[in-house]
Amino acid sequence: MSEEFHVVQPAAHNALVEAAYLHRGFNQHESEAAARFGEYAARHGVRTHNAIKALHLDEHFGSYTGGCIPCAEIESIPSRFAACEVWNANKKIGQASAYAAIDRAIELADKYGIGQVSVDNAFHYLWGGGYVMEAAKRGYIAYTNCTAALAEVVPFQGKFPTLGTNPHSWGFPTTDAIGFPIVIDWATSVVSMGRVQQFIREGAQLPAGAGVDSKGLPTIDPNHVSALVPFGAHKGYGLSLINELVAALIGGSLPTLRCRDIPAGEKSTPAYYFQVIHPDSLNAGAYAEGRNQITNLKAVLNDILGHGNENCLLPGQLEAMWAEKVEAAGGLLFTEAEIQAFNQIAATCGAQTLTV
Amino acid sequence: MSEEFHVVQPAAHNALVEAAYLHRGFNQHESEAAARFGEYAARHGVRTHNAIKALHLDEHFGSYTGGCIPCAEIESIPSRFAACEVWNANKKIGQASAYAAIDRAIELADKYGIGQVSVDNAFHYLWGGGYVMEAAKRGYIAYTNCTAALAEVVPFQGKFPTLGTNPHSWGFPTTDAIGFPIVIDWATSVVSMGRVQQFIREGAQLPAGAGVDSKGLPTIDPNHVSALVPFGAHKGYGLSLINELVAALIGGSLPTLRCRDIPAGEKSTPAYYFQVIHPDSLNAGAYAEGRNQITNLKAVLNDILGHGNENCLLPGQLEAMWAEKVEAAGGLLFTEAEIQAFNQIAATCGAQTLTV
Repeated sequence: MSEEFHVVQPAAHNALVEAAYLHRGFNQHESEAAARFGEYAARHGVRTHNAIKALHLDEHFGSYTGGCIPCAEIESIPSRFAACEVWNANKKIGQASAYAAIDRAIELADKYGIGQVSVDNAFHYLWGGGYVMEAAKRGYIAYTNCTAALAEVVPFQGKFPTLGTNPHSWGFPTTDAIGFPIVIDWATSVVSMGRVQQFIREGAQLPAGAGVDSKGLPTIDPNHVSALVPFGAHKGYGLSLINELVAALIGGSLPTLRCRDIPAGEKSTPAYYFQVIHPDSLNAGAYAEGRNQITNLKAVLNDILGHGNENCLLPGQLEAMWAEKVEAAGGLLFTEAEIQAFNQIAATCGAQTLTV
Repeated sequence: MSEEFHVVQPAAHNALVEAAYLHRGFNQHESEAAARFGEYAARHGVRTHNAIKALHLDEHFGSYTGGCIPCAEIESIPSRFAACEVWNANKKIGQASAYAAIDRAIELADKYGIGQVSVDNAFHYLWGGGYVMEAAKRGYIAYTNCTAALAEVVPFQGKFPTLGTNPHSWGFPTTDAIGFPIVIDWATSVVSMGRVQQFIREGAQLPAGAGVDSKGLPTIDPNHVSALVPFGAHKGYGLSLINELVAALIGGSLPTLRCRDIPAGEKSTPAYYFQVIHPDSLNAGAYAEGRNQITNLKAVLNDILGHGNENCLLPGQLEAMWAEKVEAAGGLLFTEAEIQAFNQIAATCGAQTLTV
């Protein structure tokens, strides 16, 4: 790795993050959920969605501006469908509501084979991959999507950003087969606005087809990028639309209003969708060569990564490798800049700073 | 349109297709399903998966070679999960088993809000979009994936084709909102092998990043393409893996054996997965501005395609426009070459030829 990392004890990290959330008015349960999720992101090397980012998002769109309401209670909307729940999160902190939703979807999948929890009036849950990875480690197939905070992406062949970076996350219970869960998790834009900022800082150009200027014309100059482009042309556009359609069916409103100041009577909240499938509910029980579901998964993955493809990675493998590195180092790994960011947060809430 | 099309009465088309399937030993119900699906593909302009293609696939991988068994009976495997079914299709013709599966998934969604049907020992169902479009027209959210017939696609950064073109298809019940169902439906390779053949015929080059040669090196010369590449780098690769993982969990075996001569004890059949969601099961009942689920969908789509994006299309719109053209023409539209292909099929089974 090109950057130097410092080892931070999870307990110290979690105490700092909890204190920051408690200081902002969140309750103990919410603050613990935020610390746990921050640890999980850091443990898997997801530096774009660690606790620093979470607290930053809370400041810009969350508890400072009314987008997230500390101590909000989730209401379950009555439904006639046994395998499904619909919740009004009342703008509760995303990490706590998303953990609750995936846990409930797992219970539904245990009972019905498949279950879903749809969440209206939500707040940013950060890294969808974290929830489905956790469910996959517990033995389930899990899926989530959410509408992103801001409309930064133009429709395919469009000019004006009316879509979020709308990510999709799938987790598969492959730990027993290959040692870690396969987690397929990405935004539907070619790059994020964070990457555009990075290209500006580094004086680099964008890949072709990743951004458009204010007139909707393609540009590779990050200084001229005013909106992002979906990956894979109409294919990524379709995937991005899915999040908006699901959110619209749940209760989300116009994407261009999301997380913004809005007219009375309108809604600006994102929505989440969680789905969990019990792997037994797919099992037809007739695997070749006397294999079972797990050894069959392993055989199929060996075939895909055989025949000269041995150097290919599986989605989720980098995250699993980072977790091994963390295990070996005996603590979470943060850069000097990240340690400083944490300690600035500590200063604002009187928490113990991180020592390295 | 650059090609000239002839108008063919659906009844004449269906009689010919039915006769061809009956001639190959399929029963009346199966032959009707194949004709109905061929009509549906032709009605929506899906020329790559019309009845000519279906009969061609049956010849190469199906009833001529034992990949598909006429008059096979579907067995439902006992499951402890109420919202899920798992079937052994016993290599029954794809159109009939897929119609049965989506119908059953709709019944499960009516009862549980969400339902799934997994199908092992399947045969090619042609165009997944057709099944989810039908479910979407009936008011449901529907999803299907299947493992493709042949391993033609290399993993991301791989050299050897071990993945199928593994398509995904989603349908959304947007007819009441915008006049047609949104259908997101595509293969996970940049292009299909059919397109590579077309580039060879036309003396054209492939887009960059669509194909590799026999050494696994990128090439844009269609004559040198030995395998395809997933769209969107690791993102399309992840989407392609989903089909293999789901199939592996159901009962599918190694992708490189699929639809090929195989060692004893192995399986070479594809697997399908169908999922249907009742839109009421997502409804949190709190739309902005007093909207309901349908008017909210319409408002969200108007926002996405507003602000200068008015010329963008929605997925499924081209198919809906083709269906309008068919309606206006008073019959299905086929090229001269397609009519000739149908009439060659008619000659082999003694069916009435198409007249134009």
